[in-house]
Amino acid sequence: MDNSGFVDAALLARVRVGREYVAAKYGFRNHWYPALFGHELAEGQARPVTLLGENILLKRIDGRVHAIHDRCLHRGVPLSRKLECYTAGTVTCWYHGFTYRFADGVLCDIAGTAGSAVIGRRKLRTYPVSEAQGLVFVFVGDADHTPPPLAHDVPPGFLDAELAVHGKRRVVAANWRIGCENGFDSTHIFIHKDSVLVAEADLALPLGLQPLGRHAFQRQLDDDGPKGVFDNFGPDEVRPVFTATIEGEEVLHGAIGGSNRVPQDISMWLPCALRVRPWPVPETTQFEWYVPIDADHHLYLQTLGKRCTNERERDDWAREFHARWLPKALDGFNDDDVWAREATQPFYADDTGWLEEQLFEPDGNIVEWRKLASAHARGIQRPEHIDPPGHTVLSVD
Amino acid sequence: MDNSGFVDAALLARVRVGREYVAAKYGFRNHWYPALFGHELAEGQARPVTLLGENILLKRIDGRVHAIHDRCLHRGVPLSRKLECYTAGTVTCWYHGFTYRFADGVLCDIAGTAGSAVIGRRKLRTYPVSEAQGLVFVFVGDADHTPPPLAHDVPPGFLDAELAVHGKRRVVAANWRIGCENGFDSTHIFIHKDSVLVAEADLALPLGLQPLGRHAFQRQLDDDGPKGVFDNFGPDEVRPVFTATIEGEEVLHGAIGGSNRVPQDISMWLPCALRVRPWPVPETTQFEWYVPIDADHHLYLQTLGKRCTNERERDDWAREFHARWLPKALDGFNDDDVWAREATQPFYADDTGWLEEQLFEPDGNIVEWRKLASAHARGIQRPEHIDPPGHTVLSVD
Amino acid sequence: MDNSGFVDAALLARVRVGREYVAAKYGFRNHWYPALFGHELAEGQARPVTLLGENILLKRIDGRVHAIHDRCLHRGVPLSRKLECYTAGTVTCWYHGFTYRFADGVLCDIAGTAGSAVIGRRKLRTYPVSEAQGLVFVFVGDADHTPPPLAHDVPPGFLDAELAVHGKRRVVAANWRIGCENGFDSTHIFIHKDSVLVAEADLALPLGLQPLGRHAFQRQLDDDGPKGVFDNFGPDEVRPVFTATIEGEEVLHGAIGGSNRVPQDISMWLPCALRVRPWPVPETTQFEWYVPIDADHHLYLQTLGKRCTNERERDDWAREFHARWLPKALDGFNDDDVWAREATQPFYADDTGWLEEQLFEPDGNIVEWRKLASAHARGIQRPEHIDPPGHTVLSVD
Repeated sequence: MDNSGFVDAALLARVRVGREYVAAKYGFRNHWYPALFGHELAEGQARPVTLLGENILLKRIDGRVHAIHDRCLHRGVPLSRKLECYTAGTVTCWYHGFTYRFADGVLCDIAGTAGSAVIGRRKLRTYPVSEAQGLVFVFVGDADHTPPPLAHDVPPGFLDAELAVHGKRRVVAANWRIGCENGFDSTHIFIHKDSVLVAEADLALPLGLQPLGRHAFQRQLDDDGPKGVFDNFGPDEVRPVFTATIEGEEVLHGAIGGSNRVPQDISMWLPCALRVRPWPVPETTQFEWYVPIDADHHLYLQTLGKRCTNERERDDWAREFHARWLPKALDGFNDDDVWAREATQPFYADDTGWLEEQLFEPDGNIVEWRKLASAHARGIQRPEHIDPPGHTVLSVD
Repeated sequence: MDNSGFVDAALLARVRVGREYVAAKYGFRNHWYPALFGHELAEGQARPVTLLGENILLKRIDGRVHAIHDRCLHRGVPLSRKLECYTAGTVTCWYHGFTYRFADGVLCDIAGTAGSAVIGRRKLRTYPVSEAQGLVFVFVGDADHTPPPLAHDVPPGFLDAELAVHGKRRVVAANWRIGCENGFDSTHIFIHKDSVLVAEADLALPLGLQPLGRHAFQRQLDDDGPKGVFDNFGPDEVRPVFTATIEGEEVLHGAIGGSNRVPQDISMWLPCALRVRPWPVPETTQFEWYVPIDADHHLYLQTLGKRCTNERERDDWAREFHARWLPKALDGFNDDDVWAREATQPFYADDTGWLEEQLFEPDGNIVEWRKLASAHARGIQRPEHIDPPGHTVLSVD
Repeated sequence: MDNSGFVDAALLARVRVGREYVAAKYGFRNHWYPALFGHELAEGQARPVTLLGENILLKRIDGRVHAIHDRCLHRGVPLSRKLECYTAGTVTCWYHGFTYRFADGVLCDIAGTAGSAVIGRRKLRTYPVSEAQGLVFVFVGDADHTPPPLAHDVPPGFLDAELAVHGKRRVVAANWRIGCENGFDSTHIFIHKDSVLVAEADLALPLGLQPLGRHAFQRQLDDDGPKGVFDNFGPDEVRPVFTATIEGEEVLHGAIGGSNRVPQDISMWLPCALRVRPWPVPETTQFEWYVPIDADHHLYLQTLGKRCTNERERDDWAREFHARWLPKALDGFNDDDVWAREATQPFYADDTGWLEEQLFEPDGNIVEWRKLASAHARGIQRPEHIDPPGHTVLSVD
């Protein structure tokens, strides 16, 4: 275990709202997290990921993805440092031959030392895996915690059968909470005022969105579904602001002329997912995740979904995604968010930022999110759960 | 706040002489510090600096330089990460449009969210600025501390109307106190024995300067002026040593033949300025500052001044400075000081060096400086004053 | 002193076996350590090394190697930063001229400040040096600890007059204990299964070596000789395993056909030396050291020795070493060990690995080694002994 990246207890005691959320520097435990896209893991292929500070080795066997702790029980080395799989269902540690089954984590053999008493008596931690909409989800939680349905941990609509999903993922040098709050933050729209996406998607993009009352933010807390906070952008809830005035002088204008007034609502869901609906055009929705990697990095996994009712629509959408929205939206537009998060990270890095920040009215949805997450997350990732920092996977290649 | 760079209290308790000085790892508060040269800041130009661990944004407006804290109140991001100035007198945060006046730091508008209750009610920290002799000085201090005249915080003579000043600045990877003590240290002359400056300035440069008595070091403590320590090099105070002997064998000779026997005195002034008079030739004086940036870096701001009584003398001096003294003195000669400081830094980095060092007789002036600074500095920079390390400005470009 | 690299006391209290060994993160004090090869230090040449966190300056004077602390008493700078030796037997600090004798460390003069009272009254720490078999050994210990004969601190046989020794050294990014345990570990043979050395040395290299009983590991604890642990590989002690089976399926075969069944025994000696006998061919023996540098690095000093009875045999052996065994054994084969150690280091970096590791039967020799080292080492390197990290020598060039 490594305590260095965790939140100081004395500081935490001074946090008045959302204390569990602030404490969850490495994320919320006992939730489903997307790790990569299914197409990144071919049959028989294995690859390592780091989720919530835990190093995990994924392998696709007979079509199904399995996940085990990427750390040999014997000497703690990462199995992925030099992958040796001598049978389809096992991995053998490159160092001393300890061999584990992906299915249950059991130490089933030791290559070179057949007779050891530990064989069959020890096992690696395993992780439940679920594949949906082209994403591989891993449940990072306690051994005695039965995973809930995946549907409880993704934004509403994401699992709809007709939704066709494409996306990308990358590592961002900021804590996962900075990712969530950048995405869900309505007034950060200011940063995007010159984005290439404005013309590409013919957006009417205001400089700001002013909340009109306390009901702009709504919680959704169904027992049998995901839990999240909605920020509604209808005419009763917010007023889009297209002109900025400084000391009485008009200095700046938003993109008022576009025909697409999107989005209608933005919502944030446990454990760490954002839905922007519709976006960037009326037919598509963006779902994205800010998956904790370590104290200073998150996996930014971005997707766009569109309803398609037949194969031809699916093919057309795949082409459109790669030609237009991957370069102009997920890259061009969201690249600004990436550097904004990295520029925000130092202020929050030692957690004093949570005490010194000065939020204002439009940040009400973020406060709601912090409260909801603190009240409804299933657990907090603790120092004893995480692996040594030297092996953290900080690359998606 | 970040405590990591500060001095351990138990260690500090063991320091017998100059305790406040040792405690001032980030510098002395409530003093004037030079940040850059005036010509580095054109009309309308803004640029960030870090002084004593505080990130500060400077802008020249209608000829006058203003300084505000380079950290948005809202989310703590540096305004300078992407400068957006929509009016001459303000800066708008690139993230959510928070707009601050340089004149008083007041949050005067929020671009995109006009109606917020926080507008006009919050303000950024501002810093008094004074421009003199081509340098921009910033007062880093408490809001309720009225800045003294600049003349109290620069070496005597620096503000003389006839003095024409030129210089350069750079970042050195050593604490500011290591900078002060390298500059003021008389026996470090040993390091310069092979300098290109010896021939260029026809120097009689001894290998060492042996103090002859206790009155070699003199304090200057006028109520209405700068406070500092003089190290006099007249024939009654020190004996220049031109021959080094090891176990009876003559092994080394200083540059005895030069016609210029400079300097006559070297003096160190609060908060962190050195005067070498005259240097490197009888007509010029070197004034230089070791301005704290963070625990491990200082801004080394070097100047040479020469009395000029008319425009032609000023032009000649400017040409001479750039052709001769910039390359041979401020670079060539002082480059040796820069690496000496960086080589000394590790021993003092965790502050145990202050306890383990073994000073000798000629270091008396340094001990005087530590005492004077401890007794007369106006305050110590504390952890609560400094900004997160991620945004520290460590470049002069 | 710097405490950061040392073992947490609460953690140490939880270690049940080999506590002193775990505590010795910077090595065991009062032992002889090889620093470099004698041919790396020509007559009159000086060079710095870091052993057990102490910076040491070596110089060969009239054929004999001397060692002094590489840190000026005055301001703590490393003398080696800019070496200035004005007489054969002294070094003069580049900063203020403090001049020390290599023979006794005494501050014998100050170049430029002849009259100081400290001259002759202060001295640098010195280190006993012994040169043998082409290696320069330094005794790192307390001033009042009389060094034992070098023969007590090297593996048996290493000092035999007829042994001709060649080798190389390099820095490995892992703690020295990780080095010892990688070298002494019998089942890590698994990592070498594809080594170029198998063909080069015509090795019968099994995949593993299964211990047959408790007497496989033997201590050697003569009062008048080195102390170590033997791991015997005779037919009564271990069974070589040439076939690996996973869940009943034969998946892998060792190099069974080779004619050279080596080694017969591997033994580990205080303070940090391994002997592999014979290796890689029946006529040669490998002796290697894992010398502590700092918490995260060791000097990997590898040698091969062969008995030679005349000059021609010595010449032939020198040629053979450089043509065959340097590239194929010390590099090719042991390169795998180097990356294995670096891959293991993060798990043990904060010392929790010592509590979380799960050893198995063949690790019995490693447990013996930890016990023997804990019981018989002459002291533990403590924070007060080590130098600031900024000057650690991490290069062999």
